[in-house]
Amino acid sequence: MIVLIITSNKSLINGKPLIWDAIKIHDSVAVIVYNRTSKRLLFVRQFRPAVFFSYLCKSVDTLDLNVFSKDNIHNVNKQLLDNPNLGYTIEICAGILDKQGKSPQEVAKEEIEEEIGYKVELNTVKFISSYRSGVGHSGSLQYLYYCEITDETPKGKGGGVEDESIEVIELSIEEAKKLLYCEDTEAKLSRPTAMLFALCWFFYERSPQL
Amino acid sequence: MIVLIITSNKSLINGKPLIWDAIKIHDSVAVIVYNRTSKRLLFVRQFRPAVFFSYLCKSVDTLDLNVFSKDNIHNVNKQLLDNPNLGYTIEICAGILDKQGKSPQEVAKEEIEEEIGYKVELNTVKFISSYRSGVGHSGSLQYLYYCEITDETPKGKGGGVEDESIEVIELSIEEAKKLLYCEDTEAKLSRPTAMLFALCWFFYERSPQL
Repeated sequence: MIVLIITSNKSLINGKPLIWDAIKIHDSVAVIVYNRTSKRLLFVRQFRPAVFFSYLCKSVDTLDLNVFSKDNIHNVNKQLLDNPNLGYTIEICAGILDKQGKSPQEVAKEEIEEEIGYKVELNTVKFISSYRSGVGHSGSLQYLYYCEITDETPKGKGGGVEDESIEVIELSIEEAKKLLYCEDTEAKLSRPTAMLFALCWFFYERSPQL
Repeated sequence: MIVLIITSNKSLINGKPLIWDAIKIHDSVAVIVYNRTSKRLLFVRQFRPAVFFSYLCKSVDTLDLNVFSKDNIHNVNKQLLDNPNLGYTIEICAGILDKQGKSPQEVAKEEIEEEIGYKVELNTVKFISSYRSGVGHSGSLQYLYYCEITDETPKGKGGGVEDESIEVIELSIEEAKKLLYCEDTEAKLSRPTAMLFALCWFFYERSPQL
């Protein structure tokens, strides 16, 4: 919770003090990757604890952490069996800016190798835009990039680091387009806002030139 | 903090328990509004405490709430004087789903009246897509809509409710396009991801037909 400052006897909003919940999280990068040889866009499927939590809270009609209580464990197990995609998302390659001294572009390049397994040259990672990834409860920045690879691009390991479990998903342009417009609940996997912006940017600016 | 469940002696990720910070926040709606008469897109400028907090934490090189301590108040005041847009964003019309029994489409219609002051018909509020507005720390859903108005559309009050302080900003299509591609730090006002997705959707799908 933050309490906004009263300065010069005036608060920031309408002369009243303002009390607000906010969290501080890392800034981040995201990068949409297109393989010119296979004509496919590369995404990652991964487990997102917060999305899982959000599903469960809704489905058991509770607003609190009772969703994880022992009494509710059979409910959780049933839902996991019914929906093996529960809490999984499809996203563009992304990562947080937690490495001292590295530029967002450098981190984006590293994430391409860590998550989807291609060793790209730094200058092929092109800046698109930067924006606030959350405005209601966090004010963190995200830097969005675009990178084209080919089947000749050197390969690395991919799949994430340490406790990440990341699966690469390759989709044709037409398949990817179907992810733009649907109800999240109808999509096989949840999609974050930045992926939809990046995809829409690709269809609007890049794919007409391909 | 959530601790993910171990089910059938297996945890969800690589056989290890997973501990994660997550917050539960409301689902939300956002709606991009275009005035066919004036050929302008309608945005809202508003103060976002979390964005303000994020700016200050960065600029005073601290990770905690010391940014709001008495010792630091002169720093905060100086920054406010230097940058009157600190913590302000430019966004599309949006709101949280906290009204029992109302559909996302109905809430979007109400937000158009509350925030930008037009009383539109429900069937003019068209669904574009829904997605997860946060995947790292919250799994909340956002429903995105599009609505066209004209100078004949009946007017209401606008400007937000209670402790909101919302200013409507009307931009030509060309002016709005400049908001798509820039560094957040170079933009006069911070832009959230959903606004960029909605804008890009408008340029890609709608403006070619206008």
